Amino acid sequence: MIQPIDEVIRDLFNGSVLDGTLAAAGEAPMSYDGTWRRSWLQLRRNTAGSWLQALDWYMYVDFTGTDAAEYKWLAVVHNRVVYKTVDEIIAAWKNGTFVRSPPVNGDWATRKIKGNARDLDDRAGPRTVQFDGPRYRLDEKEDYITWMGWAFYLSFERDMGVHLWDINFRGERIIYELAPQEAMAQYSGDDPHQASTVWLDGAFGMGSNVREVILGYDCPADAILLNATVHEQGSSTRRNAICVFERESGRPLSRHTGWVEGEMGAVKGYELVVRSVSTVGNYDYIFDYTFQLDGTIEIRLSASGYLQGGLWKPEQAPYGHSIGPDAMGSLHDHIINYKIDFDIAGTANSFMSVALEMEDKDEAWFNDDWGPMTRQQRLVRRMLPEESLLNFPQNAEGAYVVTNEQAFNTFGNPRGYTIHPGPLCHLTNLDAKRTENNVNWAKHHLAVSRRKDTEPKSSSMWNMNLPGKPPVNFYNFFDNETISQEDLVVWLNLGTHHIPRAEDSPNTLTNIATSYVLLAPWNFNDYDVSLESRNSVLLDSKGQWVVQEAVKPKTCVPEPPEELTYHGVEGYREDGTLIPQDTPQYQEMLVEMNHGLRAWNERAKNL
Amino acid sequence: MIQPIDEVIRDLFNGSVLDGTLAAAGEAPMSYDGTWRRSWLQLRRNTAGSWLQALDWYMYVDFTGTDAAEYKWLAVVHNRVVYKTVDEIIAAWKNGTFVRSPPVNGDWATRKIKGNARDLDDRAGPRTVQFDGPRYRLDEKEDYITWMGWAFYLSFERDMGVHLWDINFRGERIIYELAPQEAMAQYSGDDPHQASTVWLDGAFGMGSNVREVILGYDCPADAILLNATVHEQGSSTRRNAICVFERESGRPLSRHTGWVEGEMGAVKGYELVVRSVSTVGNYDYIFDYTFQLDGTIEIRLSASGYLQGGLWKPEQAPYGHSIGPDAMGSLHDHIINYKIDFDIAGTANSFMSVALEMEDKDEAWFNDDWGPMTRQQRLVRRMLPEESLLNFPQNAEGAYVVTNEQAFNTFGNPRGYTIHPGPLCHLTNLDAKRTENNVNWAKHHLAVSRRKDTEPKSSSMWNMNLPGKPPVNFYNFFDNETISQEDLVVWLNLGTHHIPRAEDSPNTLTNIATSYVLLAPWNFNDYDVSLESRNSVLLDSKGQWVVQEAVKPKTCVPEPPEELTYHGVEGYREDGTLIPQDTPQYQEMLVEMNHGLRAWNERAKNL
Ligand SMILES: [Ca+2]
Ligand SMILES: [Ca+2]
Ligand SMILES: [Cu+2]
Ligand SMILES: [Cu+2]
Repeated sequence: MIQPIDEVIRDLFNGSVLDGTLAAAGEAPMSYDGTWRRSWLQLRRNTAGSWLQALDWYMYVDFTGTDAAEYKWLAVVHNRVVYKTVDEIIAAWKNGTFVRSPPVNGDWATRKIKGNARDLDDRAGPRTVQFDGPRYRLDEKEDYITWMGWAFYLSFERDMGVHLWDINFRGERIIYELAPQEAMAQYSGDDPHQASTVWLDGAFGMGSNVREVILGYDCPADAILLNATVHEQGSSTRRNAICVFERESGRPLSRHTGWVEGEMGAVKGYELVVRSVSTVGNYDYIFDYTFQLDGTIEIRLSASGYLQGGLWKPEQAPYGHSIGPDAMGSLHDHIINYKIDFDIAGTANSFMSVALEMEDKDEAWFNDDWGPMTRQQRLVRRMLPEESLLNFPQNAEGAYVVTNEQAFNTFGNPRGYTIHPGPLCHLTNLDAKRTENNVNWAKHHLAVSRRKDTEPKSSSMWNMNLPGKPPVNFYNFFDNETISQEDLVVWLNLGTHHIPRAEDSPNTLTNIATSYVLLAPWNFNDYDVSLESRNSVLLDSKGQWVVQEAVKPKTCVPEPPEELTYHGVEGYREDGTLIPQDTPQYQEMLVEMNHGLRAWNERAKNL
Repeated sequence: MIQPIDEVIRDLFNGSVLDGTLAAAGEAPMSYDGTWRRSWLQLRRNTAGSWLQALDWYMYVDFTGTDAAEYKWLAVVHNRVVYKTVDEIIAAWKNGTFVRSPPVNGDWATRKIKGNARDLDDRAGPRTVQFDGPRYRLDEKEDYITWMGWAFYLSFERDMGVHLWDINFRGERIIYELAPQEAMAQYSGDDPHQASTVWLDGAFGMGSNVREVILGYDCPADAILLNATVHEQGSSTRRNAICVFERESGRPLSRHTGWVEGEMGAVKGYELVVRSVSTVGNYDYIFDYTFQLDGTIEIRLSASGYLQGGLWKPEQAPYGHSIGPDAMGSLHDHIINYKIDFDIAGTANSFMSVALEMEDKDEAWFNDDWGPMTRQQRLVRRMLPEESLLNFPQNAEGAYVVTNEQAFNTFGNPRGYTIHPGPLCHLTNLDAKRTENNVNWAKHHLAVSRRKDTEPKSSSMWNMNLPGKPPVNFYNFFDNETISQEDLVVWLNLGTHHIPRAEDSPNTLTNIATSYVLLAPWNFNDYDVSLESRNSVLLDSKGQWVVQEAVKPKTCVPEPPEELTYHGVEGYREDGTLIPQDTPQYQEMLVEMNHGLRAWNERAKNL
């Protein structure tokens, strides 16, 4: 059905889906309850940065069934008018109501170097080196890593990539499982494509879409690299898909200037990072798990890559900005859900909400110049009796703590871990049909439920296209079970409201598009155990300043980084034989693993 | 008046203020309106980590006037009972109602290494090296720094330390002045000392209390170091007080995995950091200003050092935790105010509030399977007509932008900078007499007013002790002046609600006790200008992977870091001659610059 209007498309956009000069970008959800499969395709220029080069041609297409011959388009929108038949389109084209898009230099949307070099940028920037050798250990067979008191296992799977297991610190388990669950992006716009897009990237596979890191850019040149294998239509391997490295945190973890012996010094801030990058078509997600010397874990998600751009028209102003020639950056929310199966001093855990509240306190000694009453804040601690859906308090006035009410530190406090939010958010849009029941996890900052073997994940690879009838409905986990001294799972969201600006072109910047949370000891220990660190200093001012360093900095000739090479995906057939990268089979495999554009394009050709 | 009860104190606490084995810790505000000067002193053990070693002895002391002979105590609180006279105290002591504090090993509160070394911690950790030389330039005479398109001046003053001036990026001024204004800490507790403490550290001088950085721990070993001079009773110099260094940001600033030529690559994330550390008695404040390749500035405040500890009793539970032998970590808020005098594309600027709101959108093409209405979010932009006191929206659903409504980028958007919050907060306690009018800046996340020569600062060094009659009342700046295309100042708070836990002992950890904001281009440019970076890579997958790096990583034998030395404060008399560090004059100078303990101790001896 594309064939009869191909001439129109060629005339308007100077290209064709049939010869590959145009691409068709789809959207999801493609169904509500699985009884049909339909989706809006938008044409794009198929040049570099095609993601940003949307054209004024939207087709509502029926893909129901498995017989491509049955696929058909139901409506076309151009210049805000809906056309239902080929005849309507041809007639409107002939009477001149259609608008030609001028050709555009595709280079504006590439990552190629632009502009003059900045002063001294001909020099290579500073680089971290392990002069004294790595300080972590890796058991490659077991994917088991240890560093500075930490120990954990890694696994890898199709839907969401890296999972961490049995995370121990100083011989005690803190977390049994730490794993991303789902990543969604919901868009807005004044066109059928943006307004109806809700991606759930678990459907495409954050694991399938992990690619080799660009060593020296994504991770330090001397990181250790692990391969990732995905089993899906045979298997495929991404060499060097996960990097693990130690780095300086950027500031001392603790420090004090003092004059009394034993008071002055600093502990160097080192961290171990486990990182993988998934590129799901246009977007790049950087998954970081960072372990710190005091027992803190940071979970971070940073985004880069191309926006899913729309076509700019003045009517689009409430939904974003014009960021290029006819190009729109569209308002959208990113929400990424994590499962954190805490085991704090055992599996019997409770969940404490701590609120900062105000009080007027009247005590004998306050009868001074300030009057008898003092207004001050106080902590109100409450153990949540039941499974709960929660938000972080406004102005950060409170805390959440996973604790074992029967395990105490030396000073009588129940041992715990607090969930300390960095910038993050829940979904803005709480009440849309396209997200009716498939992303209920996204509608709150966090949630706590009993751990169940029957509730292993908050989403599924089929949730995207079944908002009305999702295989996993997160709310079903919350059936008022008590959570006092039980094995608990915290489900937590990272995310950003993404209001694209010109500076998102060509690619989103990871300094703003980043979200994190810290899991930190809360009276878990008796004191800051990073004082065990030997990469620390004590200073004493008795007359002259005396410096005590247990370990001195090392210097030597570091190995030069190897010449940067890149490998691509290695595909294996079901019988285990390698698929050469130049075969159609290999290309097909990439297409299958690739969000949107390529697969859609093939489908559009069938119309 | 201490003399008659010294025997009682010795008996109870095994020490004395008179011989220096105990210290007296004061609090502020010491007055409401300047008509009197009174303060609660609490005794502490004067050993290492004295800040954490509070004792059950509180004295309400009158310091009114300049004649120390007139100073006297008005009340003593011990074991929750108020005593007004020496006779009452002696009587109660003799009848055995007083409680003896057992001696405690002072080592629990030091920074000395504790416990066994962790695996491989005998190795020095990784270290950043500028193998290719520094990429910044410093004009030492002008305190003028340039790096990767950025250029700015530094100055230094007593109250708050480092100020940045005339911050330019790629030849355009972004900010005329960027400077901290004040730092407050307000405490809560079930005792007269914690319940009445509100520190404003500008009074003690964040500048006066800047100290030499511990090179290699506070800053990388190859940072450039600048001296700071404070003029106050003569002058004094802190050698190496400010460090400036370039570092890796920890992740690529942008990146994408693609297959089309020009789509795949990464820009290395480099940053220039300007850092100083002020230790105001117990607390250490790390001030960071970080410049990024895309035009983003991060303002960050991290805290470490000793808590102002209280005395633990069960009644203290609503105000903190027991964190050591009889030691309490008390709930308190830190709020730090910054002045940001933006000049975005000139001095004529407006302030835009962008809200994310929900709408039900009804358009012809939505009459598909999902029904005629789509529920989605939209941007509602509003230019604030007048000077305003503002909070960041809940769940981050919105943005603030400083913009020039008459300057546009190529795509028709007014050029601007957005204020993108990381973790931060305003004061919880909005309505206390001790903070009645002197910290009005702390009661909101941010504020915008017209720039005035007569409103250079949001606080003053005298504000602390004059909450009822402050020299600077921030609210007076907000007199409903219009702010459309005017020269604007944004007053912004960083801060944390500090709920101390055992892990704050001995010192607070900078990974949690950190707060930041990003100032980021918002359609200020036409695209991400960090694409100018030559420390970047492009990859192309035509058959084989082709790697293009404009600048390759360098490797050589780096200079080994110099042996760590430390210098202390260099004091100069009014006539310019050096004060030797072993003279009483030098000690006196340090005492004068030192928050609380030392000065209070001297005063307590006079009672
Ligand atoms: Ca349940
Ligand atoms: Ca004004
Ligand atoms: Cu986005
Ligand atoms: Cu604090």
